[in-house]
Formats: sequence, C-alpha cells, structure tokens
Amino acid sequence: MSFKLEEKKLTSTLIFDGKVVHLYKDTVELPNGQSAIREIVRHPGAVAVIPLTEEGDVIFVKQYRYPFSTVLTEIPAGKLDSSEEEHISAALRELREETGVSCEKLTYIGDLYPSVAILDEVIHMYCAQGLSYGECSPDDDEFLNVVRIPLDKAVDMVLSGEIRDSKTQVAILKTKILKENGKL
Amino acid sequence: MSFKLEEKKLTSTLIFDGKVVHLYKDTVELPNGQSAIREIVRHPGAVAVIPLTEEGDVIFVKQYRYPFSTVLTEIPAGKLDSSEEEHISAALRELREETGVSCEKLTYIGDLYPSVAILDEVIHMYCAQGLSYGECSPDDDEFLNVVRIPLDKAVDMVLSGEIRDSKTQVAILKTKILKENGKL
Repeated sequence: MSFKLEEKKLTSTLIFDGKVVHLYKDTVELPNGQSAIREIVRHPGAVAVIPLTEEGDVIFVKQYRYPFSTVLTEIPAGKLDSSEEEHISAALRELREETGVSCEKLTYIGDLYPSVAILDEVIHMYCAQGLSYGECSPDDDEFLNVVRIPLDKAVDMVLSGEIRDSKTQVAILKTKILKENGKL
Repeated sequence: MSFKLEEKKLTSTLIFDGKVVHLYKDTVELPNGQSAIREIVRHPGAVAVIPLTEEGDVIFVKQYRYPFSTVLTEIPAGKLDSSEEEHISAALRELREETGVSCEKLTYIGDLYPSVAILDEVIHMYCAQGLSYGECSPDDDEFLNVVRIPLDKAVDMVLSGEIRDSKTQVAILKTKILKENGKL
C-alpha cells in the first residue's frame, strides 16, 4: 500500500533573517487535510572538497565549531555567497583559502542534504586531485589548522567515531569506494 | 605551525523557541581577540536506525520533506523527546513506529553531526538486525511509505546521488564496510 505524501504550503512567516540562518515558521496542509507547523531554516547552500594527494593522503582542516564547543576534523568547505554562485569556483576558492591548495582535477562526488526535516541546506561535494601548495588565506573570523591523514586511516576514524561531521564522513567513505572502483 | 582555535561565548540571545528549532544569536570572542556573531540552532538530537534483513536488504521510509518540496528515501529516524531521552529506547520506538519493525539486535554505528557551523544536532545511529514485522504507527503529522532495497543497490544509489539525506548516506556506507569486515 502506498500513501500520498505531499504537503502544501498554506502560510510562511519570516522569523529571523540572519547572516547565515534564515528561519521561517510555515503552516502546511498535510495529506489527510489537517494542518501542521513546519519550522525551517533556509540556507544559501555550501560546497565541500576532499583534497586527495598522489600518495593517497587527505588534507583536512581542524576548526573550532561553536555549536559543539570543540575542534572538529573536517574537509575544506564553505557556504555559497549566493544561491546563484557557481559551485566549482566556490569549491576552488574554499580549497585555496582554507588549505592553500590548488588542483588540476576536480571531480563531482554528489550532493548531501545535512538535516532534511528542518534545514534546506545542500552541500555540493567534490574530490580534488593533482594538488599544488601555496599560502592559506582564511576569512577574518576563521581560524584553522591544516592536517594530512592517509585515506585508509581517515576511513578508520569515520568508523571509530573520531570524525563526526556529516560531509566529511560521506566524502571519505565515497572517495574510498570510488578510488577502489577506479573512478578517481 | 598550529594556531589557537577556541572561541569564547560573550553573549547569547534566544531569538526563537520553537517545537524543534531553538535559534540563538550569540557573540563570541575569536582567538585573535576580536568578536564575531554566531547564529546557531539548538536541537534536542535524534536517532536513526538502518534495519538490515537476513537477506541483506535495507528497509527505508519514503517521506515528503518540506524544506526540499520533495519525497526523500531515508532510514527510519526521529528526534529525541528530550535531550535526556535514552537513545536505544528512542531508536527502537522510531523503528517500530515508522516501519512496524522490531529487532533482536541493535548495534551502535556512530554519531553524525549534520551541519556543524550552525546546528548542534547530533544523530545517534544504529543498525537493527534479527527483524520481525508488525504494524506501523507513525505520528499524526507523519506520512510514510516503507520500501525494501538490497544493501548493494542502496550503495549504488548513494554513489549515483539518488540517496541524498546525510544520515542515510552515512549509515548505508558504514553498514556496507562493517558487514564486509564481519562487524555486523
């Protein structure tokens, strides 16, 4: 048996229009005709890049993440300046700014919807290869340390729970499989 | 060279105290002594369960996701009723409510931080095995269709971009590797 699933927007109220977070409180009509409230955060979207060296290492950034009051190990990433910003140029920019790395080859490895019930953010993910190294130039309010970890060790860190960020977990596991399948 | 990364909370203002979304606008002191604004969504946390049959199939739910105006294929999941709610009982409840499935064995497969810059949500993930089947009993505002897909096909759907939800991507790829390694 298969049910009708669609919800219809009835009203939408902007609660907070911030720098990154744009919060709406909407009412919707459910498939059974009743109404419900949907609290959703609209976000311009983001790009993330897993930089893979010829030796099979991954270049990560360690960054303090205020929501968790801790430093997390992540792949380079950043939000789009606007929802029209071209994804590839944003990916190359974030990679260069956060790690100082440029690349010869950028392969799209899929999109990620981080938190589907409340957040419309989409993270567009790429693998960078053919790397060359320069100076970092992070944003004024961004403080990062760059670390290099073998891909197989990174897979172990995902499995052991040491790497917890969603885009980083997905990019590592996808890259491992794509590399084994000769797709990277 | 390694930089100090920690940020110190200076002020915190509650902007919106919703049913799921609790939005704060905080000011922090950066490692260089300057201040910055952090817009963060606090969330009670969630559990997600990948139900794996003896035949190697995964049981998914298809659900309309309002932020994306589309139906997504996901593993069963739900938010914690409070941040003190016991994770295992929440996982068993969500599995039963959304799919009608009970299980003999529940294996913890790691945590996920969906969107680390703006959201403090943690998704605690489990693999369910030894499944038995009963009736679904979703929440009043929840409309779901249950589908069964072989794990290997699900891996392909992650790689091809057909499965986009972060917890679902991670749970499928981890389960594939853990199963191959004899850990599930």
